[in-house]
Formats: sequence, C-alpha cells, structure tokens
Amino acid sequence: MTSKLEKALNDIIEVYHKYSESECSEDDYLQKDEFKKLLKKEANSFLKCTLPYGMEEADYIEDLFQKANKNKNECLHFEEFVTTLAKLAIHAHNMSHTAVKQGEGQGQGHVHGPH
Amino acid sequence: MTSKLEKALNDIIEVYHKYSESECSEDDYLQKDEFKKLLKKEANSFLKCTLPYGMEEADYIEDLFQKANKNKNECLHFEEFVTTLAKLAIHAHNMSHTAVKQGEGQGQGHVHGPH
Repeated sequence: MTSKLEKALNDIIEVYHKYSESECSEDDYLQKDEFKKLLKKEANSFLKCTLPYGMEEADYIEDLFQKANKNKNECLHFEEFVTTLAKLAIHAHNMSHTAVKQGEGQGQGHVHGPH
Repeated sequence: MTSKLEKALNDIIEVYHKYSESECSEDDYLQKDEFKKLLKKEANSFLKCTLPYGMEEADYIEDLFQKANKNKNECLHFEEFVTTLAKLAIHAHNMSHTAVKQGEGQGQGHVHGPH
C-alpha cells in the first residue's frame, strides 16, 4: 500500500511531468517558461511569501531558475528542480508553524499549512 | 485554493510532524529513532529499492541520517530532513519512469509511481 508520504511524492512528480511534458516539449525537462508556469500556477503562495523585498517576480523566478540550473544549460532536469522543491518544502514547513501560532492566538488546535 | 503541489507539500509536512512530535519528544526535530520509524513506515519502497548492495538496512538508515545531519547533533531539523526528502523525490521520479517503461512493455498508458 502506498503511504501518505509516497502518495505526496507521486503527486509532486505528476505536477512536474504536467509542466515538463507540456505542448512545446514532450521531454522530461523543465524549460524556463514551463518552470515559470509551474511556480505561478502551483506555488503562487510560495512566490508571493518569499519574494525578496523590492524584487520583481520575474527576476525572482529567473533567480530561482539559475540557482537550480547547476549545469547552466537551457532547462532543468528533475534532480535540478529538487533544489527549488526543497525551498518550497521549507516554506510549507515554516507556514505550518505560522498557522499554528495564529491558531493558538484564536484558540484553535494544531492547524497545518495554508488552506 | 491550495494547489496539488501545495497539498502534497502540506502532506509531507504532516508526515514529518507525525514523527518529529511523537511521544518521546514533542519538539520539531527528528530524533534518530523517529527518523528510522518514518523511513521504515512511510518510505519502505525507497529503502528497499535504494539499499546499497551488501549493506544492512540499519547501516543505510544511519548513513542517511549522518548525511542529513549537517550540524552533527543528535537530531534533524526540517531543513536537514529535506536532504533525505530530496533523495526520496528523486527515487519517486525514477520509479515513475520505470513504471512507464514497464507500462509500455504491457501496452498500458502513462503510469506514474508505485500503486
């Protein structure tokens, strides 16, 4: 039986494939515009919350792409995308504790992540 | 609305908290035995598939723990756990392509991850 963690990882892989295999390229790599679409559609709260002060979103996405793009070619393979995925996971974890602190402020129980 | 990617990340955080806040320690850190329990219960296929030839599972889990434990104390905080999470994600991605190749061998469509 697939565990909750394995199911979540499989869902992440499916999201990755949804964008890496979009119309313009059926390969397993994320072109820059596919990476941008993925973040804007699937991780918009991450983008909004972690956008460095005074930076344009387009520049931030470019910065995330370059930091992940270890071999400096024109696209990311999955292992490079995991660099950004790690940032997303850390953000989600931080949010889970922010939600808890807000929950404690309003007498709620242990609340996780943005709903 | 929470996207599929955000939901998956929130589920991963909940799994992490299930083990980091187990009976023996209510903190947000994974003690070694909590890390071991998490991997054995939630990522058993990863452990079985990626176990280096000739290595004992206990030694492999110890090796994964040490590789994640950057500050070399007795437990992992979430950002250290992400090191192992990255390995799990890469394994899940590799499995998704293994399943596709097997699927093609049996005339199935695009199948993702272990079911």
